[in-house]
Amino acid sequence: MKTTILIHCPDQSGIISNVTGFIHKNGGNIIYIDQHVDKEAGVFFMRLESDFEKNIPIVQSLKQRFEKELALPYQMEWSLHLGSTKPRMALYVSKYNHCLYDLLSRFHSGELSVEIPFILSNHADLAYIADQFNIPFHHIPYSKENKLAAEEKHMSLLEDYKIDFIVLARYMQIITPKIIARFPNKIINIHHSFLPAFAGAKPYHAAFRRGVKIIGATSHYVTEELDAGPIIEQDVTRVTHAHSIKDFISKGRDLEKIVLSRAVKLHIDRKTMVYNNKTVIFS
Amino acid sequence: MKTTILIHCPDQSGIISNVTGFIHKNGGNIIYIDQHVDKEAGVFFMRLESDFEKNIPIVQSLKQRFEKELALPYQMEWSLHLGSTKPRMALYVSKYNHCLYDLLSRFHSGELSVEIPFILSNHADLAYIADQFNIPFHHIPYSKENKLAAEEKHMSLLEDYKIDFIVLARYMQIITPKIIARFPNKIINIHHSFLPAFAGAKPYHAAFRRGVKIIGATSHYVTEELDAGPIIEQDVTRVTHAHSIKDFISKGRDLEKIVLSRAVKLHIDRKTMVYNNKTVIFS
Amino acid sequence: MKTTILIHCPDQSGIISNVTGFIHKNGGNIIYIDQHVDKEAGVFFMRLESDFEKNIPIVQSLKQRFEKELALPYQMEWSLHLGSTKPRMALYVSKYNHCLYDLLSRFHSGELSVEIPFILSNHADLAYIADQFNIPFHHIPYSKENKLAAEEKHMSLLEDYKIDFIVLARYMQIITPKIIARFPNKIINIHHSFLPAFAGAKPYHAAFRRGVKIIGATSHYVTEELDAGPIIEQDVTRVTHAHSIKDFISKGRDLEKIVLSRAVKLHIDRKTMVYNNKTVIFS
Amino acid sequence: MKTTILIHCPDQSGIISNVTGFIHKNGGNIIYIDQHVDKEAGVFFMRLESDFEKNIPIVQSLKQRFEKELALPYQMEWSLHLGSTKPRMALYVSKYNHCLYDLLSRFHSGELSVEIPFILSNHADLAYIADQFNIPFHHIPYSKENKLAAEEKHMSLLEDYKIDFIVLARYMQIITPKIIARFPNKIINIHHSFLPAFAGAKPYHAAFRRGVKIIGATSHYVTEELDAGPIIEQDVTRVTHAHSIKDFISKGRDLEKIVLSRAVKLHIDRKTMVYNNKTVIFS
Repeated sequence: MKTTILIHCPDQSGIISNVTGFIHKNGGNIIYIDQHVDKEAGVFFMRLESDFEKNIPIVQSLKQRFEKELALPYQMEWSLHLGSTKPRMALYVSKYNHCLYDLLSRFHSGELSVEIPFILSNHADLAYIADQFNIPFHHIPYSKENKLAAEEKHMSLLEDYKIDFIVLARYMQIITPKIIARFPNKIINIHHSFLPAFAGAKPYHAAFRRGVKIIGATSHYVTEELDAGPIIEQDVTRVTHAHSIKDFISKGRDLEKIVLSRAVKLHIDRKTMVYNNKTVIFS
Repeated sequence: MKTTILIHCPDQSGIISNVTGFIHKNGGNIIYIDQHVDKEAGVFFMRLESDFEKNIPIVQSLKQRFEKELALPYQMEWSLHLGSTKPRMALYVSKYNHCLYDLLSRFHSGELSVEIPFILSNHADLAYIADQFNIPFHHIPYSKENKLAAEEKHMSLLEDYKIDFIVLARYMQIITPKIIARFPNKIINIHHSFLPAFAGAKPYHAAFRRGVKIIGATSHYVTEELDAGPIIEQDVTRVTHAHSIKDFISKGRDLEKIVLSRAVKLHIDRKTMVYNNKTVIFS
Repeated sequence: MKTTILIHCPDQSGIISNVTGFIHKNGGNIIYIDQHVDKEAGVFFMRLESDFEKNIPIVQSLKQRFEKELALPYQMEWSLHLGSTKPRMALYVSKYNHCLYDLLSRFHSGELSVEIPFILSNHADLAYIADQFNIPFHHIPYSKENKLAAEEKHMSLLEDYKIDFIVLARYMQIITPKIIARFPNKIINIHHSFLPAFAGAKPYHAAFRRGVKIIGATSHYVTEELDAGPIIEQDVTRVTHAHSIKDFISKGRDLEKIVLSRAVKLHIDRKTMVYNNKTVIFS
Repeated sequence: MKTTILIHCPDQSGIISNVTGFIHKNGGNIIYIDQHVDKEAGVFFMRLESDFEKNIPIVQSLKQRFEKELALPYQMEWSLHLGSTKPRMALYVSKYNHCLYDLLSRFHSGELSVEIPFILSNHADLAYIADQFNIPFHHIPYSKENKLAAEEKHMSLLEDYKIDFIVLARYMQIITPKIIARFPNKIINIHHSFLPAFAGAKPYHAAFRRGVKIIGATSHYVTEELDAGPIIEQDVTRVTHAHSIKDFISKGRDLEKIVLSRAVKLHIDRKTMVYNNKTVIFS
């Protein structure tokens, strides 16, 4: 039975040997360990993949002992995930289809170990892609007038379908603070610039005006401040004076879909932790 | 006799055929032509490498005819450079040696077709490198009190040595408006961030705080507004949560020297033109 | 009326000015010109985008005059393409869907100015994607016994649908010499290695065994010699000792689809020319 | 007292917890741990940085206990390095100066924690750089006739100066089997291609002939088979049809020096292990 344990706690001597000793003592074999110490903040982070020859009921007692023997004394925040459990992902889109197609074709090829209970959009345009892939599509238009009603519909869907995290695949509408608060570090956005340069609207236009020689895309967790959440992944590509804004947009599409897919995969594989508005990305 | 002609003018039909016809008619063979139209601004840019079987005195009459037959009717701003003329470059440094070593070892290997009449610094630390390479070193300390006197010394050196352009190889002092005005689009700086992100002081510290996954370096022409001049070249490298600010600085050094050297080479080869605070970089 | 002219001929003085003069004289406005001289082979290459205020019938006489005034005296091989004509592309696939999805979603977004009359496969697996995008799907199984019959069916389809070029989107079957001869430099393959390293079968396995730190993908025109045709585009991505062959394959998929799409776009935009088993890629 | 421990052994359950437990029990604080399992070969690799509040004499008894309690039962090959010990590096060069300047300027800036007892060359050309940096220079010409005598001189120098590892900074002469056997996985070469493509002589010429769109450089440990040793680091850069062989060489220089410096730094920081002709590169 494969498990992944994520831990963060104040940095102290002996954590690694005590945690690895605990796993060994309880019949687990450590497959992979990665850790990080944020020296400025004095915080220790660890991710452990282990293999236990045990069934799921026994996991409960394991968790209780971990809590008592390690988490309490070391003041750990921690979580244990069973490899057999697929997280449930809601896909939000608007009118652009490139990120959606990219995620769905990866999902379809078995590259992403995830459930996709529904696709949600503020526009009807991409309903046909949901049809192509046989995934329920919810069209919830958004206007100043229906703001509260729309938020309520979102919340109902997210709760009814037991959604674990949300992916904004070029969803061009603000996520409300209530939803952000309900899914902390669990809403993944793709912004079409190399953040923090060109946050906000029309980043390709701004990049063109500034005459940059490289453009980028950034995937980050959504926080209340626009485009300012913890960065998960970034990538860039070269441009020249000969490229028009239209060319920037076209080249950017390839970046956006690759960067978003990488970030989604890291999240699904539980390789991300967030601290002080920054991510630790485990290998 | 190799020549490079740079032209920009309002975009009109027939420029290419008229200019190439002029060169052909005057015994020149076109080796390479690159052009660009800024459609928004309606401006045409061209760079032509040609080979004339003529000696330098004849170039003068060629220039006069070009002025009359082409530059005037098409309202061109243009310049003609003889391949045999090496531009004269002043090297400004402070305490970091990596960009200086990189430029000097390229110069020494014949990679940069340039004269380096002197190295100038506001500190004495790198005088030994000037010695290693047998290049005069001028130490002009800078303080609030000697501001004007220092500027005067700079101007004298730049004039006496007939400097064509200045390279700031991690020179950590503001260039005065008077010098900038005297060398428009002829002062090349290297900024240790992916501009426009992290302009100003301590960009690696700012990048670290923001938790970016990629850092960069930018070479640009100096204008009065800090780190806001026309970008010549940029490049980036990956970082992770595991890298400290010290690591950023160390990885950044490799970017800085490569990006600055590329920009200097483009400038020397007369492959840059500036318009609307942006560069056209010819191939 | 937008036109693209492609030319190659022995390198001589005066070609650029004569060709641009011809276009100007005939009422054309040159939008973009790019040229290259292969100095070793003494061959001149040029690509010209022009705008003529003329209708298609007049193009015929233009072509005749170009042939007489320029092509004959300069021994040019040349072609003229109207911007309004979309080339017709046959898509060949086997069992992997990532390149197919990528090309079809770009096609669907209007990114590729092309017709796709059919998708052909030696397996039935991906018929559902052809259905998703409403494109005819032809399943032509391949075995030693039906070799000739299969080739004939291919030829019929290619002729009947007036196919201009073929894209092998991870088509895992040899293309017969007869088809290659019929479509010279018009069959685009994607090979999942950084050619010339790891030509042939199972390149990711070979790369893994050699312990490389970077893997690549290469798109090239198909010639009779396996994986040895003119390279159109390549790209690479980093790997480490921690990546398994499965990881190589997964990372490679992202390379393959991006590299193939770029090559297909270059071909559609008529930005490729082939000479001496190498490509000139115009900007 | 900082120490780095490198271990490899047959993969078994419990190694991590036992090793980390041993360090904790002996008063060490684990700063960083990185490990890897080669599943095909069934081999476990680990690198541990620890901080002991102990002085060097006590290290000896620590090593004895480690040997008895861990190394023997787990059949480990292992080594322990004190952070205060700088490895001693011999620099071999021929006529190109770019890698030499790059390494020496890094050394001079304190970037490389190493001793450089001497520079050795089969040519006298770069003696002046050794002078610039005040490092002894040994000129040992090489010819078929003096082969054995030269090898003897090399061996004497390497022994007399207690050299730990050798860096071939574009040294254009074969290293003899005897020297390779004496320094297994301790001779670092830079090859100017993206291996395994273009092994052997004149790789830029071969890359140009094949028409590749990307060129590379590879740093590897030297083994008897030419350019076939374990790869430490690789990097690449784009080229186009417009680049001549001379351009390849010039662009390649920047790759070579960066790739070699990275490999040297990884070796100095004891972040490399070799197994089955492949490297594990620790983070």
